[in-house]
Amino acid sequence: MFDPVEKLKEYLRHPSVSADPAFAEGMKGARECVGGLLGEIGFAVEYVPTELHPVIVGKREGDPSWPHVIIYGHYDVQPADPLELWDTPPFEPTEKDGRLYARGAADNKGPLMAHLTAVGRLLEAEPDLPLRITFAIEGEEEIGSQNFKSFLQQHSDKLAGANFVFLSDTGIPNPDQMVITVGLRGMICFEVELSNARMDLHSGMYGGAIMNPIQALAELCASLHTPDGKVNLPGFYDDVIDVQPWEREQLQKLGLSEEDFAKFLGVENFHVPPGYTPFEATRYLPTLEFNGFGGGYQGEGSKTIIPSSARVKISCRLVPDQTPEKLKEKLYAEIRSRVPAGLKIKITDQHDATPYLVVPPDRNNTPKDQSEVLARAFRSTHGVVKEVWGREPLYLREGGSVGLIADLKSELNLDAILLGLFLPDDNLHAPNEGFDLSIMSKGIDTIQEVLRRTAHPDG
Amino acid sequence: MFDPVEKLKEYLRHPSVSADPAFAEGMKGARECVGGLLGEIGFAVEYVPTELHPVIVGKREGDPSWPHVIIYGHYDVQPADPLELWDTPPFEPTEKDGRLYARGAADNKGPLMAHLTAVGRLLEAEPDLPLRITFAIEGEEEIGSQNFKSFLQQHSDKLAGANFVFLSDTGIPNPDQMVITVGLRGMICFEVELSNARMDLHSGMYGGAIMNPIQALAELCASLHTPDGKVNLPGFYDDVIDVQPWEREQLQKLGLSEEDFAKFLGVENFHVPPGYTPFEATRYLPTLEFNGFGGGYQGEGSKTIIPSSARVKISCRLVPDQTPEKLKEKLYAEIRSRVPAGLKIKITDQHDATPYLVVPPDRNNTPKDQSEVLARAFRSTHGVVKEVWGREPLYLREGGSVGLIADLKSELNLDAILLGLFLPDDNLHAPNEGFDLSIMSKGIDTIQEVLRRTAHPDG
Repeated sequence: MFDPVEKLKEYLRHPSVSADPAFAEGMKGARECVGGLLGEIGFAVEYVPTELHPVIVGKREGDPSWPHVIIYGHYDVQPADPLELWDTPPFEPTEKDGRLYARGAADNKGPLMAHLTAVGRLLEAEPDLPLRITFAIEGEEEIGSQNFKSFLQQHSDKLAGANFVFLSDTGIPNPDQMVITVGLRGMICFEVELSNARMDLHSGMYGGAIMNPIQALAELCASLHTPDGKVNLPGFYDDVIDVQPWEREQLQKLGLSEEDFAKFLGVENFHVPPGYTPFEATRYLPTLEFNGFGGGYQGEGSKTIIPSSARVKISCRLVPDQTPEKLKEKLYAEIRSRVPAGLKIKITDQHDATPYLVVPPDRNNTPKDQSEVLARAFRSTHGVVKEVWGREPLYLREGGSVGLIADLKSELNLDAILLGLFLPDDNLHAPNEGFDLSIMSKGIDTIQEVLRRTAHPDG
Repeated sequence: MFDPVEKLKEYLRHPSVSADPAFAEGMKGARECVGGLLGEIGFAVEYVPTELHPVIVGKREGDPSWPHVIIYGHYDVQPADPLELWDTPPFEPTEKDGRLYARGAADNKGPLMAHLTAVGRLLEAEPDLPLRITFAIEGEEEIGSQNFKSFLQQHSDKLAGANFVFLSDTGIPNPDQMVITVGLRGMICFEVELSNARMDLHSGMYGGAIMNPIQALAELCASLHTPDGKVNLPGFYDDVIDVQPWEREQLQKLGLSEEDFAKFLGVENFHVPPGYTPFEATRYLPTLEFNGFGGGYQGEGSKTIIPSSARVKISCRLVPDQTPEKLKEKLYAEIRSRVPAGLKIKITDQHDATPYLVVPPDRNNTPKDQSEVLARAFRSTHGVVKEVWGREPLYLREGGSVGLIADLKSELNLDAILLGLFLPDDNLHAPNEGFDLSIMSKGIDTIQEVLRRTAHPDG
């Protein structure tokens, strides 16, 4: 069997930034690295083309009576900029104090390596394991899994008869506390550009005569929140479901401290709607967030212009039962209505994700029709986690979005068991991303044993 | 004598961007190009060091009883970006349809070349001309003439006994109508940075818990104007002087059309405080303008982060009798007071300019103590313009800022005759800057004859 840490380093050296066409070579390298490993542990590998980045499908077939698990992961990573804030090169993995630093170490290359290793070890120990496994590793998660849904539609045969999805692309609060994520926020991503004059203008000769697009866009952005931290759009909260008592209890068991959280983030205070803690707000409430704003001169010194245009990148996080389609329509119409007369507006739709919620077995709101294999997998995960981590897992909703989870649900009616493997200080989507190698090791043991018990429901 | 067009091309090939240290070589090249020309027409040349870019001083001494004229210009230019919007390379001058296209062609390399040529021709025609001339050509006009004031303080001997300043760094509305600029707006330039978390954060995991610096900065910016287009700061308009009837009359004589102006700018409508035309607002009213806004991810696609910080570049244009010192203090205090609790603010002072106003002779508000040489120069300029351009000049305030004009006034008590030489479509500070060569030619004739009459007050 391969050494997971060495293989992970090799994998991380491929700069697989899906958002930027300049990284096509890195995407190919990362893909072939995963494909090679799947081959090594006995899987039939196929690179299924999509409109952008291919999906890696690795299959271990078997008797149709065996349970069938889909293991999901993604081989793409976020852009690494701002590069100057990295202590070590983002695509040259550096091991330090039991952690591995590189872009994608935690999101999602390390966790995927844990699944690959667990499966490899399991099959090495029991070559005849009665379990069908399909790896589906996409390359567009960081850009919203744009083509994964059509992959699911066009290639549903490759995932046919699956019982549930198993994956690790979520977090845990500390190295001792496993969290099974049962809810994910959805997303709407778009860009708004306002423009006025046909070119940048001298701010002396023309300043005072026309509306500056930065001003107009700032005023538009300023209109999108109320002073108490809510999103200021009519009907935005209409479909937000109530939080269940067992959910609040689980969150309280986490024992999170606002003071520690503020210190960790480096902020002096929180900014949440009344009646919510920051831990609740990030899980149970939708948001409208400005991810980037650019207009005019941003170089050194000054340039006294009225820019011709200004752009803002906006993303909304949605919670059940909000839907991207319905909200987008409202949102875009409202934004258009708030543009000052005479300015031109261009809204560029980027990507969406539907929010997701799976209720574990034996809860007051567990659906009556939950499948037996899924319920059993939840129960055995609970038991294995207790053994490997020394503590029961918690079942929590999380603030992030994994749109394909909702797609797997809507297209194939599959729920997922989301075993968290990254820590708060792993710096996802930020400089100095890292992954804890002892977590990876415990993750491998957990995944291996959960899969073994899935194959052997009676012990 | 040299050919002004060929010399101008040579001069324009030096990329003298004063704002960016990367262009040090271009600054040196432009400086030596001007120095060489001054030497060629018989001037003693000196490069007077300042804290940043040296001032070129060219002197033609003479009998102390002769009038002494200072000719001002600047050899630095604005940055050329966005480069992709130029039709021809910004530092490879291209002649087309009687115009020369390059960064700095109009601001200020072409107009300065007109002065150099006029003086060269005048001295060639009359080597014993009874006129002292001092060229003072600085390299920091585009970054606010940061060190010109201390140059004036430390080297007042070089400009001693001067009667007035003669320059062309202002515009005219069309090729037939000369305008003598009698007022300039002042300026305050600064940058505001707001920051919150210690690094960019994942907008899923943390979105909804903290104030996004882009949001905070957008809300701050949105608070700086009233809906009717005024600057929303207490006391901002306190020191703004009333416009004189003769000023309004002169402006009306320009016969400007709002419809043409809107078409020229490419805007659908104007945005001016009630009671002002766009032509008045840009001349008689102060502004607060956003020159650049940057924060978060601005690359291709999306990056779902809450950025750690956001920055805005702001410039205010001031009018008489506002003063940068007094307004800055108010402005910064007010801006600080509008930052949401917990966010860190950093205000970086960039540069200032005091507004300027000179009243031509024989007006209701001409100062009683106006010097006779200045009044005479105004009158002879009026006559020469009528002859060369076939129409009387207009005397107008202009929206731009030439801070050193106010410095020459405050340090050496010198007023200036500002002979406009660039046209509205010369694209100053914008892509595809150009300069009309027939204007240059008429400018040369005008300057030559005004200087001749200054030397020979009695004909």
